[in-house]
Amino acid sequence: MSEVPQREGRRRVVIERVTPEIDCGRFAAKGVAGDDLVVEADAFSDGHDAISVVLLWRSEDEEAWSETPMEPLGNDRWRARFPLAGLGRHIYTVEAWVDRFETWRQDLAKRLAADQDLSVPLEVGAGLLEEAAARAERAGADDDAEELEAWAGRLRVEAAAGVETADHPALDPALASLARRYPDREHATRYPRELAVFADRPIARFGAWYEFFPRSTGPGEDHGTFRTAMEFLPYVAEMGFDVVYLPPIHPIGETNRKGPNNAVHAGPDDPGSPWAIGSAEGGHTAIHPELGTLEDFHAFREEAESLGLEVALDVAFQCSPDHPWVEEHPEWFRHRPDGSIQYAENPPKKYEDIYPLDFESEAWPELWEALKGVFEHWIGEGVRIFRVDNPHTKPFAFWEWAIGELREAHPGVVFLSEAFTRPKVMYRLAKLGFSQSYTYFAWRNQRWELESYLTEVTTPPVSHFFRPALWPNTPDILTEYLQTGGRPAFVARLVLAATAGASYGIYGPAFELLEATPREPGSEEYLDSEKYQIRDWNLSDGESLRPVVERVNRIRRENPALHRDDTLRFHPVDDEALVAYSKKDPDGANAVLTVVNLDPHHTRAGWVDLRLDALGLDTGESYQVHDLLGGSRHLWRGARNYVELNPNVMPAHVFRISRKTRTERDFEYFL
Amino acid sequence: MSEVPQREGRRRVVIERVTPEIDCGRFAAKGVAGDDLVVEADAFSDGHDAISVVLLWRSEDEEAWSETPMEPLGNDRWRARFPLAGLGRHIYTVEAWVDRFETWRQDLAKRLAADQDLSVPLEVGAGLLEEAAARAERAGADDDAEELEAWAGRLRVEAAAGVETADHPALDPALASLARRYPDREHATRYPRELAVFADRPIARFGAWYEFFPRSTGPGEDHGTFRTAMEFLPYVAEMGFDVVYLPPIHPIGETNRKGPNNAVHAGPDDPGSPWAIGSAEGGHTAIHPELGTLEDFHAFREEAESLGLEVALDVAFQCSPDHPWVEEHPEWFRHRPDGSIQYAENPPKKYEDIYPLDFESEAWPELWEALKGVFEHWIGEGVRIFRVDNPHTKPFAFWEWAIGELREAHPGVVFLSEAFTRPKVMYRLAKLGFSQSYTYFAWRNQRWELESYLTEVTTPPVSHFFRPALWPNTPDILTEYLQTGGRPAFVARLVLAATAGASYGIYGPAFELLEATPREPGSEEYLDSEKYQIRDWNLSDGESLRPVVERVNRIRRENPALHRDDTLRFHPVDDEALVAYSKKDPDGANAVLTVVNLDPHHTRAGWVDLRLDALGLDTGESYQVHDLLGGSRHLWRGARNYVELNPNVMPAHVFRISRKTRTERDFEYFL
Repeated sequence: MSEVPQREGRRRVVIERVTPEIDCGRFAAKGVAGDDLVVEADAFSDGHDAISVVLLWRSEDEEAWSETPMEPLGNDRWRARFPLAGLGRHIYTVEAWVDRFETWRQDLAKRLAADQDLSVPLEVGAGLLEEAAARAERAGADDDAEELEAWAGRLRVEAAAGVETADHPALDPALASLARRYPDREHATRYPRELAVFADRPIARFGAWYEFFPRSTGPGEDHGTFRTAMEFLPYVAEMGFDVVYLPPIHPIGETNRKGPNNAVHAGPDDPGSPWAIGSAEGGHTAIHPELGTLEDFHAFREEAESLGLEVALDVAFQCSPDHPWVEEHPEWFRHRPDGSIQYAENPPKKYEDIYPLDFESEAWPELWEALKGVFEHWIGEGVRIFRVDNPHTKPFAFWEWAIGELREAHPGVVFLSEAFTRPKVMYRLAKLGFSQSYTYFAWRNQRWELESYLTEVTTPPVSHFFRPALWPNTPDILTEYLQTGGRPAFVARLVLAATAGASYGIYGPAFELLEATPREPGSEEYLDSEKYQIRDWNLSDGESLRPVVERVNRIRRENPALHRDDTLRFHPVDDEALVAYSKKDPDGANAVLTVVNLDPHHTRAGWVDLRLDALGLDTGESYQVHDLLGGSRHLWRGARNYVELNPNVMPAHVFRISRKTRTERDFEYFL
Repeated sequence: MSEVPQREGRRRVVIERVTPEIDCGRFAAKGVAGDDLVVEADAFSDGHDAISVVLLWRSEDEEAWSETPMEPLGNDRWRARFPLAGLGRHIYTVEAWVDRFETWRQDLAKRLAADQDLSVPLEVGAGLLEEAAARAERAGADDDAEELEAWAGRLRVEAAAGVETADHPALDPALASLARRYPDREHATRYPRELAVFADRPIARFGAWYEFFPRSTGPGEDHGTFRTAMEFLPYVAEMGFDVVYLPPIHPIGETNRKGPNNAVHAGPDDPGSPWAIGSAEGGHTAIHPELGTLEDFHAFREEAESLGLEVALDVAFQCSPDHPWVEEHPEWFRHRPDGSIQYAENPPKKYEDIYPLDFESEAWPELWEALKGVFEHWIGEGVRIFRVDNPHTKPFAFWEWAIGELREAHPGVVFLSEAFTRPKVMYRLAKLGFSQSYTYFAWRNQRWELESYLTEVTTPPVSHFFRPALWPNTPDILTEYLQTGGRPAFVARLVLAATAGASYGIYGPAFELLEATPREPGSEEYLDSEKYQIRDWNLSDGESLRPVVERVNRIRRENPALHRDDTLRFHPVDDEALVAYSKKDPDGANAVLTVVNLDPHHTRAGWVDLRLDALGLDTGESYQVHDLLGGSRHLWRGARNYVELNPNVMPAHVFRISRKTRTERDFEYFL
């Protein structure tokens, strides 16, 4: 039998279920520098005593805690927020204690209301204040100590005199707030875990990405270079994107190189897949000579930055048979009994142009260091965003270590996980540190599946660790919906991605040029995919969605509601081909309601039944909806309103919702 | 920057979200000795490799783990179960690893199906089997080692010969199961926490309780004794109860004793409240002299046991001003500035007949020991069930320690928490060790609130730590529904409690005698409550519910479906005054469907829309429903069936559902 535990017995408050907390504190939550982190906790004591609950927080490199009182939400739940002042890890936990003075004060109010004798209670209160005075004195707050002593004396006088009025001086809020500063925390309970949040740059939360192949920016079907790609950048910048993301820019293997449309044998002039990384000219830290030199890359990156674009690189940890590592580090690859190196396969499929790295190698520590070195190399060259190819085929432990190390040294670096795989695997990658993640968005086309999936990824607990990146297409994904839906399908998917997702991206110019032909029926691969050949895009095609993309990106920038996902709410519409959802910014000044017709072939109309509370509107209130996409303005009132969308005109409304201002309401005048 | 972590890098499998796990393993889950505990976990690896997952388990006093393979449920979730062979704590965790042989085997099947060359893969497989043989040899399994070597040799021969048939010998299930016994677990991942489950006696999960005041068992209004209470026991046993629970049996204080109906002053002959514990004749370990002696108590307890009844005592940690502790241990009470001891109050209410114990006393360690000593005393006198009065007004840490210590020494002891308070407080008490808990059941009268509340407390995560005890009434709770609903209300609440709750209880004879008059309008107190006076109950009242109670308890005993709460499912009915729910036993042999008319005043009828899967029935199947309460039998088919309940006849059906047996179906004969 164990002894009565020492020191613990009088800690009466319990703290449970602190959020965000991911896997019992194993992983850091996600935040953004400059934002607040909202923390909640259950806290309660035995009995009826009042308690005080505080949030403790600090950045990881600070020693001392800052402290913020938590406010009760009811049902023993408490909430506070703290500012994520800088990039990197911040730590938080919760502390709580029985608040004897506040308990006394609440009881006194009840005793007063019941006209009870107060002499003993006032003596008790005076005693509590004297204790608080002693604590104030120990804290060096002599003035406060004196004031508390004076209050104590006054209570003792009143105890003797029997003053019993409804607004008793002992209930003075000034006294309460003074006493609250010197609580008795001897038996305070500290939550058993210190939790972490990682504050990223805002681009981790809000950004429009544009993926393109620099080699397709040359004249005609000539191999483009970083110099020709520089000339392409204004086109991207004018459409309003924030990030340009390039497929791998490294030398491409010759052995077993794939030809157009993934042909097993390449012709002599075929450029090969950029994901078959490595040749005699170098590996993951080299630049494909046909794209130019390191200086060219820097010129490209600097031009992008001058246009307000960040460059994201693709990190794909796999090697062509010609990669220098194959000779330099054969121990990093798996060898077959016949002595050959094991190529990539997912039986019965074989990918003989690729050698996977063997993470079960005895030499895994050196391999890990080398892979981290690839990131460090490009960070050294000024890159701060990485899109990571197939992270789910490398060990979770590697990513956790590598991202942890890299972010410790470079907290502004952002990692996008390209893991199109099972949900728990995708979530694990997000938990262990990926800043953003590709999603199933491309395949969610019905309203119910958009609602359920987007709600899942934008609400806790998932939203505490997972940031969805919504991409209607990628070089690997040309969905059936885009193949068959024509221009309305492209516009609908663009608007969905860009308004439902604070982070979204397109692979262009294929997207804005409505490229929709699959390699073969039933395939999601593009015909004549840029993965295997150079394409000559007609950017001045009159059908191009470029103006729509530009408008959508401008709407995104101008409306803070669209800069975050945590306020996403769906609203019922009676036609199931219409999906309606809203977002608002935290202070409620900006609210956007999007309605999309998911049927690319038919006009759809119906009544939308707005959840007014999600929009900060009152029942029966009039408000203006201004379609930022189509330009029209309507005066709506109450929850039920009619919408009609002809997909051939414009398959979506993106309404900014304007309440009348106070003055406008007073004069019944509407802007 | 930290070094590459050593030893960890090749642990590729991740284990998450093991259930049951309560507050990150802080508390033990609840189980019952003789039952299995079902454990689930998410487990997955990077890439496409097959994994193996095992559940590790042992009783707390065993050193060695037992091991059970976990089965995949899809979506990376795995499940296994282990037997709770004895009372007390059992420990479990999960381990998983990449299963190289199974991965190889699955790939081989795909290669075969694609008619690929197998020579290299077969060589690889032979290598894996040789490694397995070496592990078998190290484990001393020489025969298995030899057999694995033989298989390896055979694969090498076939690799050379090029045998490629669809049912290749390498796919022989015997080989797979042999190889599976010698896995390579060098890089296995162990879940980071060892979790605990506490196995209680079955009475913690299933039991019918009867609360009564022994002092009301005397002739007329004479003070009853344990001897007269013995004579009352057959009445309780014949109704089919399992537990008799007695209010406190200790000496009752004289100072500020309460009179009938909680009058502030008692008359000289008023017996006082049994919860005002302690007098010159003793405290929590003494017996009220008017009830008899310790020998009388033992005679009572033994008589109860001979009738199949367990005795539960009430433990109420509070003292009358006359309790011996007040003089012996004044330091265990709070003192007011005027020198008096602080009586109980919840301002403005005062309870001057009660002194609460001061858990903030400097002498709390001695106080804790003394309180634990009260349980130990009564355990020493043969009591194994305690109903704990107002545990939420004593520190959580005390209960966790006390229950932990007591259960370590006496794992069969059961604790019922009488905390009618806020939900998180009630749940915390359950987590820290209370075996059962009173609930809000008494105040859940509408269908929607019964459905939502009973679903909450019978499904995970709550059901992992909380066992609801459903009581339609207690000496403190005469609900408005019972006050106004007459006999149909009593029957409806009885049937609800006894069939929705595996644990339920009534306070009698008030309940079965339909006692329904409140002390005053709006009060839930009984008029002339037995808490303050002796009552003379007319047990032979012709209106008594005794036969109904007896039948309900017999139905409970005879139907294993009603012995547990985890299969509780609600079924839609189109009249909202009708509530329908079912339970079945784990092997599906017994299923009970209960339909209750919640309207005590009107006949209600409607169509019940059964979730056939919850009952183990197929669509379109015929089945018999036998009303064990009313006696009628009906042949139903499919989901929708009609029910009609006249509350004045019988406000509930308790149907046993009988599928035709296999033989019966074959002959289209129906029992």
